[in-house]
Amino acid sequence: MVLVNIGNHFDLKASVFQAPRRGIYSFSFHVVKVYNRQTIQVNLMQNDYPVISAFAGDQDVTREAASNGVLLMVERDDRVSLKLERGTLMGGWKYSTFSGFLVFPV
Amino acid sequence: MVLVNIGNHFDLKASVFQAPRRGIYSFSFHVVKVYNRQTIQVNLMQNDYPVISAFAGDQDVTREAASNGVLLMVERDDRVSLKLERGTLMGGWKYSTFSGFLVFPV
Amino acid sequence: MVLVNIGNHFDLKASVFQAPRRGIYSFSFHVVKVYNRQTIQVNLMQNDYPVISAFAGDQDVTREAASNGVLLMVERDDRVSLKLERGTLMGGWKYSTFSGFLVFPV
Repeated sequence: MVLVNIGNHFDLKASVFQAPRRGIYSFSFHVVKVYNRQTIQVNLMQNDYPVISAFAGDQDVTREAASNGVLLMVERDDRVSLKLERGTLMGGWKYSTFSGFLVFPV
Repeated sequence: MVLVNIGNHFDLKASVFQAPRRGIYSFSFHVVKVYNRQTIQVNLMQNDYPVISAFAGDQDVTREAASNGVLLMVERDDRVSLKLERGTLMGGWKYSTFSGFLVFPV
Repeated sequence: MVLVNIGNHFDLKASVFQAPRRGIYSFSFHVVKVYNRQTIQVNLMQNDYPVISAFAGDQDVTREAASNGVLLMVERDDRVSLKLERGTLMGGWKYSTFSGFLVFPV
């Protein structure tokens, strides 16, 4: 479910944000792992490159989040997305969030 | 303790933020559970509706945070607050944070 | 590695952000503890005072983050930084992030 998509720069089908203009953007994510014994690693990708990672690996909790956030210099038409680098999300992306906004143009 | 309350739109007694104008707001929270064996679920409420949730359920750690963040389209006079949906905070809200700001008006 | 340092107000050697002007700033951090049995406490410092804290104390996970975020009223030339108040980061600051930006001047 997409709560906010001003400018319509988030491609729902591909789950990829494409930057409408050059600037500094703030991105943050919280990916919730529902009970399973796998460790997950989530990467924030700028185009095809991983920028930051987050981990959730606890075996004895019901729900645990892999969270991180970053400011990025983004060129026009750069694509920013989340990639599940390791593990699986058996419960899907429920409760998970991914947010980004332009802090200021450059 | 409120660190920043520009515009005085955060009602200290009720712990509710009331939006001074329509726009996109960024909200984030980190609710810290001090050692206890209960799982907590924290909901971010827009008026009376839960928008996102976060969980902390580990039994063997001293302090653990239930964190999440979101961008929201908020109407003028909408109320945004945190609700402890499940569990109790035995140590109170110490170390917990709740922040929001207007990203841009709409 | 510094991804964004517009205005060059982040001192790389000291890892301290010095505010170029008075205003409300948003800061967030995610400090990743690689497997060790120590609890860590990370403080966000404004000048020499701790403002908020975050904890990671799980003993049986590979990587765990101590995360928090806050809006702060910052005076010109105030210094904002992270301090490892308790524990050690055996793996260094790998995967950890620290971000801040001016929300609006006051």
